[in-house]
Amino acid sequence: MTVAIDIGGTKIAGALVHPDGTMTATTRRATPRGADADGVMAAVAAVVADLSESPLWASAVRCGIGSAGPVDASRGTVSPVNIGAWRDFPVQDRISAELAEHGADLPTVLAGDGVAMTAAEHWLGAARGHANALCMVVSTGVGGGLILNNQLHPGPTGNAGHIGHISVAFDGEPCVCGGRGCVESIASGTAIARWARAQGWTPSDRPGSAGDATAAGVAAAAEAGDPIALAAFDRAGRALAAAIAATATLVETDIAVIGGGVAAAGDTLFTPIRSHLAAYATLSFVKELQVVPATLGTHAGLIGAAAAATMLLPSPSSSS
Amino acid sequence: MTVAIDIGGTKIAGALVHPDGTMTATTRRATPRGADADGVMAAVAAVVADLSESPLWASAVRCGIGSAGPVDASRGTVSPVNIGAWRDFPVQDRISAELAEHGADLPTVLAGDGVAMTAAEHWLGAARGHANALCMVVSTGVGGGLILNNQLHPGPTGNAGHIGHISVAFDGEPCVCGGRGCVESIASGTAIARWARAQGWTPSDRPGSAGDATAAGVAAAAEAGDPIALAAFDRAGRALAAAIAATATLVETDIAVIGGGVAAAGDTLFTPIRSHLAAYATLSFVKELQVVPATLGTHAGLIGAAAAATMLLPSPSSSS
Repeated sequence: MTVAIDIGGTKIAGALVHPDGTMTATTRRATPRGADADGVMAAVAAVVADLSESPLWASAVRCGIGSAGPVDASRGTVSPVNIGAWRDFPVQDRISAELAEHGADLPTVLAGDGVAMTAAEHWLGAARGHANALCMVVSTGVGGGLILNNQLHPGPTGNAGHIGHISVAFDGEPCVCGGRGCVESIASGTAIARWARAQGWTPSDRPGSAGDATAAGVAAAAEAGDPIALAAFDRAGRALAAAIAATATLVETDIAVIGGGVAAAGDTLFTPIRSHLAAYATLSFVKELQVVPATLGTHAGLIGAAAAATMLLPSPSSSS
Repeated sequence: MTVAIDIGGTKIAGALVHPDGTMTATTRRATPRGADADGVMAAVAAVVADLSESPLWASAVRCGIGSAGPVDASRGTVSPVNIGAWRDFPVQDRISAELAEHGADLPTVLAGDGVAMTAAEHWLGAARGHANALCMVVSTGVGGGLILNNQLHPGPTGNAGHIGHISVAFDGEPCVCGGRGCVESIASGTAIARWARAQGWTPSDRPGSAGDATAAGVAAAAEAGDPIALAAFDRAGRALAAAIAATATLVETDIAVIGGGVAAAGDTLFTPIRSHLAAYATLSFVKELQVVPATLGTHAGLIGAAAAATMLLPSPSSSS
């Protein structure tokens, strides 16, 4: 049994995860707004307290923590962009203390949410059976993680696979990160909507997308044949194709799994990615590269936190 | 003792490499021009025969083969761009047969030359002691390889680290590989010289660079302050900085080691790379990224073939 904790800007979730991936004792708290560092931590402590009331608590052998980034797994700290009260916050030690408080002296693992989502998709989702995979979240931002040689590759600080901030346009526009031509600045939902609006697109008033100026509205317009909306997804698809091909060329991944809100646009996003992939994945060893949707939905964060802990910690039997 | 064989478009070299990296029985043959596949193989066989005459031959325990790419390590075949007679040529099996012919039934490893160079720099060169490193060759083309978690990461086909064909300009110019905006099409020696000439640069007649229209001539002109030549290296340096930063952002490498003919330009190449790196390596976990020259010169191919075999094969004691 693995204790899983998923920390995001909106909610803090927890569960006990069975070895087969099913979850029990699922719980959550809203991420406190306007609280100080200890105030946010109090919500995490409440999640741990909820879990400790499960009759299965005593059978927990490890704890996985997935967090919005940036994280520093080498120091156990996080500085989530969307949780301003936490900067270099020692969340791993603080959670260990909460676990001990409830009688559970468990080994813990901290991973960024992109790495955790990757562990989840490799364990139970679309990357299952792939020894070398890139998993991505395309949402308001763009994140990701890597499976290499059948193992999670978090990197020394737990941030590897951060594909949203590689440049696919070295002469391109500035990105919020300080870089230039980053994938996120071209292919995130935010960027897709911004580009479409800059080209003169406005949300339609047709039922179902009335006034929706976000990427979901652009996707609805693209499905209805709007040329600017189609061009916005085509441009995002080209940038994603270039980045996916670059990753495969660098580390020999043979599949890219894409989840997140923008991926919910389905073929509106996947068709341009796949059609442009051949223009960037040119070498013989990357020609078989596939791009597929993620299959784990809302619980990918918790399953991923558990999967990351399972993959990165020695199993209890082998360490004893 | 490791048998090392390095296969390139110009020469085929061999050596017996000691555990400390020193070499004995070094030998070489010119790569036959106009020969058929067996004709090229005859030169490799002659190299093996030379090595077998060494009194140390009997102490060889493994064989490493480095080859110009593309290679397919999963099948033991090579199709070097510069050796037209070899397409999907089963060089690994053929070398095993030659070894057996001389009484040496050894395990062999095949690696691309970028991967081999990386193994060499990690063993004895500038990447020594770095658990996560990118090593590159910037020459007429651009190649590379990766060390991840202190291990060589050749990928399933032995081509990982192929940084020359990642795109840093998804809307950029076509590359010979069929891609668009590849690093090699902007930063190789060939590309630097082509771009400088297209901007109106012509080789000077000053001593030492008389009529040299290659990247070495452009480098000499840059050292003398020629603005077009400086701009050519600045552009190459930006593309390399973007690619090095992308690699670090994806896999958390903390050093990039650059060898090859263009790297011989020294600060003319390294200063622009380093000055532009901060514009692309923006996330906290890549801010310490260093870029340094390779330290192994002409023998990097042989040392790398031996290092790759040592890193990728189980040691004789652990396999017995």
